[in-house]
Amino acid sequence: MTEIKWPFLTPGIPDALFRREEGVPLTKEEIRVLTMAKVRLKPGQTVYDIGSGTGSLTVEAARLVNPGRVYAIEKEPVAAALTWANANRFGLSNVEFVAGAAPEVLAGLPEPDRVLVGGSSGKLAAILEECLHRLRPEGRIVINAVTWETLRDGMDYARERGLDPEVINVNVARLAAAGKSQLWKSMNSIYIITLQV
Amino acid sequence: MTEIKWPFLTPGIPDALFRREEGVPLTKEEIRVLTMAKVRLKPGQTVYDIGSGTGSLTVEAARLVNPGRVYAIEKEPVAAALTWANANRFGLSNVEFVAGAAPEVLAGLPEPDRVLVGGSSGKLAAILEECLHRLRPEGRIVINAVTWETLRDGMDYARERGLDPEVINVNVARLAAAGKSQLWKSMNSIYIITLQV
Amino acid sequence: MTEIKWPFLTPGIPDALFRREEGVPLTKEEIRVLTMAKVRLKPGQTVYDIGSGTGSLTVEAARLVNPGRVYAIEKEPVAAALTWANANRFGLSNVEFVAGAAPEVLAGLPEPDRVLVGGSSGKLAAILEECLHRLRPEGRIVINAVTWETLRDGMDYARERGLDPEVINVNVARLAAAGKSQLWKSMNSIYIITLQV
Amino acid sequence: MTEIKWPFLTPGIPDALFRREEGVPLTKEEIRVLTMAKVRLKPGQTVYDIGSGTGSLTVEAARLVNPGRVYAIEKEPVAAALTWANANRFGLSNVEFVAGAAPEVLAGLPEPDRVLVGGSSGKLAAILEECLHRLRPEGRIVINAVTWETLRDGMDYARERGLDPEVINVNVARLAAAGKSQLWKSMNSIYIITLQV
Repeated sequence: MTEIKWPFLTPGIPDALFRREEGVPLTKEEIRVLTMAKVRLKPGQTVYDIGSGTGSLTVEAARLVNPGRVYAIEKEPVAAALTWANANRFGLSNVEFVAGAAPEVLAGLPEPDRVLVGGSSGKLAAILEECLHRLRPEGRIVINAVTWETLRDGMDYARERGLDPEVINVNVARLAAAGKSQLWKSMNSIYIITLQV
Repeated sequence: MTEIKWPFLTPGIPDALFRREEGVPLTKEEIRVLTMAKVRLKPGQTVYDIGSGTGSLTVEAARLVNPGRVYAIEKEPVAAALTWANANRFGLSNVEFVAGAAPEVLAGLPEPDRVLVGGSSGKLAAILEECLHRLRPEGRIVINAVTWETLRDGMDYARERGLDPEVINVNVARLAAAGKSQLWKSMNSIYIITLQV
Repeated sequence: MTEIKWPFLTPGIPDALFRREEGVPLTKEEIRVLTMAKVRLKPGQTVYDIGSGTGSLTVEAARLVNPGRVYAIEKEPVAAALTWANANRFGLSNVEFVAGAAPEVLAGLPEPDRVLVGGSSGKLAAILEECLHRLRPEGRIVINAVTWETLRDGMDYARERGLDPEVINVNVARLAAAGKSQLWKSMNSIYIITLQV
Repeated sequence: MTEIKWPFLTPGIPDALFRREEGVPLTKEEIRVLTMAKVRLKPGQTVYDIGSGTGSLTVEAARLVNPGRVYAIEKEPVAAALTWANANRFGLSNVEFVAGAAPEVLAGLPEPDRVLVGGSSGKLAAILEECLHRLRPEGRIVINAVTWETLRDGMDYARERGLDPEVINVNVARLAAAGKSQLWKSMNSIYIITLQV
């Protein structure tokens, strides 16, 4: 597999450039771009990507924080291997792979400036609690919620902690060829919750 | 197959109550409901359903205009049979089945009060032209556009004829069980164009 | 003021036909149409419209359930008067006006077949609890949630009661003239929760 | 007015940090972020921002292409002054201000790597034609269409030139405080058309 040089400073690597595996979720280009914007990255930052899945957020973040490091945390072996493969595909040497489930595996890691939460396996509140404790000053946490449960738990947690989250709901439809016509294909609706300490 | 008695005056028969065939499009419940509202139905009207597909618009309209009649126009044999099966399933005796393509097959039909356009096979302008000629006073035409081409051709036609269409774009996401979670599933984005003479 | 005869069986009275008052919310045409579909109306039903506001849901429902009755419940005097004015404007004689706040004022009313919940003033759970107790067999409750709090409280209540709500999120953009151009104007995003007993 | 240091590499400066003028359009944060991603920026590029309005795209692009230059083209004096004020506010010295209307004023400018088209005053086809001629190899043009006319004209132009545009429709709702509640406020629906040569 040839290494891909993505030469741009802006996030937004096309979905098709990532290696995929059946059943492993990919954060689609437009949502990935908005997520990078909301979490606000710069060189030198330490980032956690919790539930890295295909690794597309890890790849985009690692490019932007270099020489800072991204900790890709993933408990599913197939997804963990896929994150690794995609980090390799984009020639990134500043990604650390952490096999296991948050919040437990966060214990030994350096304190983060930024946290991305994709998958939380029903433990969102515990993950947020641990991340808030570990977060450096002016830290930010961005949650991508595709399920009702993640949205509700994230909002409930923010309210209990007296945080004032920024929340957006994003609906993107993409025009796609379908025979001689072009059809508006809608991506699934997603909620992006941003917590600033 | 048992006949289904749908006892309500409001449109909105659940999608699952229609018989389906692979590859034949179904106008989803929410879009169907909005389409019925935009076309404005009452008993006694004559309605064309051009490109009836699964027949869900035909079924909803036939219930509401009875004893008026709905002409279900469909050129694909599998879809035509499916429209017929669904009209039967809902016990409707005021549907006429017209096998063939619009605008040609419209020639011998009674003049309509209302026209629904789902499929147009690239002949939207010709279909609209013929329907506008045949339409009774205060008639209405509602176009469901899922493709760019239908949206553009419908808008271009309206502009050339000096009509002032009402146009809405509708995005509906439905919460659906996915394992222990509930996921926001987006239906494809659709445009509803309404022409009033 | 002339009485308006809306001759159609389908819901979807244009927003502009309702009398409006500054600060009193109106359920927009498309959302109103979907709400009527989700609550499923037929002649003879008894309907509560809780937080009737401008009265547009009351008007649409009263037309469809006649000779059944709609109980328009509204605690704000200006809104209550507006609901009354709009019911009058559409010549409806089957609307009962109930001044006061739910759930308290529901006590003396006949048991409903259908309940619409627009405004709940932070008492959604208590309103739903009372309505569920009063609801006739095969009853339905439809909640229009424009705020996070209504969405969350409605979902929390459904979960606690072991109900399995149908939930949709609707985004409608309407093309509107803006000088020589036509601009896509988005209505605010709304959630429609349907509870069936 | 104090200069603002926006220290992040990611686009997404909050709307509130820009100076605003009544009647001058602002590309909202989320749309701005997606626009930057679609146009794909890196240091050294030359960018045209046609119809710069408030200047928010100019500011984001200038930060990312530095020492490359952004040509902010704006025919309305108030908007031109506002673009200038915002470029100053963010301490940018690599913005050139071009007063006048495209395509005419493009004549003397250096060839661009990237073109952003916000306003086109009904001359979109002529603007695109001129930009395509001037564009350097592997150039990209991104059109933000908030009106039907811009969407249609952009799509028609792409078809006539045999280009295969990428098109997305974006709907973003933001949760906003409204009294004790939080309301989902929808931004206007927007279309982003990307042309690659």
